[in-house]
Amino acid sequence: MARAVLFDLDDTLYNTTLQVRQARENAVKAMLAAGLDATEDEAFDALVKVVAEKGSNYTRHYDDMLKFLGVEPNSKLIAAGVVAYHEAKRAYLVPYPDTVATLLALRDRKYRIGVVTDGLPVKQWEKMIRLGLSDFFHTVIITDDTLEPKPSSQPFVKAAESLGLNPGDCVFVGDRLDKDIRGANKAGMESVLLVRGRHSSKKPSSEEDEPAWIVTRLADLLDILK
Amino acid sequence: MARAVLFDLDDTLYNTTLQVRQARENAVKAMLAAGLDATEDEAFDALVKVVAEKGSNYTRHYDDMLKFLGVEPNSKLIAAGVVAYHEAKRAYLVPYPDTVATLLALRDRKYRIGVVTDGLPVKQWEKMIRLGLSDFFHTVIITDDTLEPKPSSQPFVKAAESLGLNPGDCVFVGDRLDKDIRGANKAGMESVLLVRGRHSSKKPSSEEDEPAWIVTRLADLLDILK
Repeated sequence: MARAVLFDLDDTLYNTTLQVRQARENAVKAMLAAGLDATEDEAFDALVKVVAEKGSNYTRHYDDMLKFLGVEPNSKLIAAGVVAYHEAKRAYLVPYPDTVATLLALRDRKYRIGVVTDGLPVKQWEKMIRLGLSDFFHTVIITDDTLEPKPSSQPFVKAAESLGLNPGDCVFVGDRLDKDIRGANKAGMESVLLVRGRHSSKKPSSEEDEPAWIVTRLADLLDILK
Repeated sequence: MARAVLFDLDDTLYNTTLQVRQARENAVKAMLAAGLDATEDEAFDALVKVVAEKGSNYTRHYDDMLKFLGVEPNSKLIAAGVVAYHEAKRAYLVPYPDTVATLLALRDRKYRIGVVTDGLPVKQWEKMIRLGLSDFFHTVIITDDTLEPKPSSQPFVKAAESLGLNPGDCVFVGDRLDKDIRGANKAGMESVLLVRGRHSSKKPSSEEDEPAWIVTRLADLLDILK
């Protein structure tokens, strides 16, 4: 019988895919309104291309985007994009409708709950604070320089250890087969795939990515765990 | 007779001093609430000291602050500070009560209006956008790699040129004797000292820092220019 329920953060506790798309669209619209000479599609594609090339934590996306569009460097246009991006990012940084209720119900049933996530530790904590979730968890493991990222079993095992439990006592819930399910399976946890968000259409390519359960809402966990 | 009125940005069009102080206090309070083991004064002094040492555009103030306080690196504490800082910074990023009305009145009277400011161009534009002022000005000069900062006369002269005017046709309004008044005087503009905010208690130390006018509210400009 499970004693802990651990969660991935992005696209599991909130809709990261929607947030990022809305933020980028808002940035592009603001840049066009501020005078960027391009179509909305051209500008959006340029931004997506720069993020794909330079990674999401690069700090000069908009400079490179203008360069890619053949537009002279322009601080006003860049600032318009930055402000609009952050406004939308902030507005969409809210938990899924069933996240808080599900976490509270799990705590009421005496489960230990936690998060295992990749990403920059301060950024991931910023998200949890803005989501209103930073005080909910008995453990939070963020893979950093000292810990291999998912799908390594390392962060999963560390999460169980930090709760004084064996991985076999833990259920892990995430949206990505190649990161969450594979890693949790390797660690010996019971894996639950949340089919929601960007990676929802993928199918397991091998047995190691096979989830023990599939749910479409976090609230379904409460039935599985009965 | 003046044909243009140019403004400094920080502490002239909005209360930067108050904004920064509130943001730092909010950051410290949030870090204490998140478990930082220090008194509010110790934590505030540590933050101020780090900012003084590393400059305001350094990106790891809170890491250094914890180090200074002898506290282990802690992403949750740092994130608490970052989020609280930005929340307050955003809340206090509003024009002085008379800024918008004064700018509109100057435009109604057919003055050209503009901004001459030091700082990172994208950051300064972000402020103008969030202040709701980004479309008000006929010229915005931000000193960057290609332009000497105040009190050089260079950015002042460039602002006049960009409006097709001589510096003698321009009035310049700012809060700092050693930057705004000295630079405007050197460029041959009529200088107006706004006595408000952080640098308000200083007295001119030499003739080159002597303002032509002193005002305590932006709205007073409308009388001076009559």
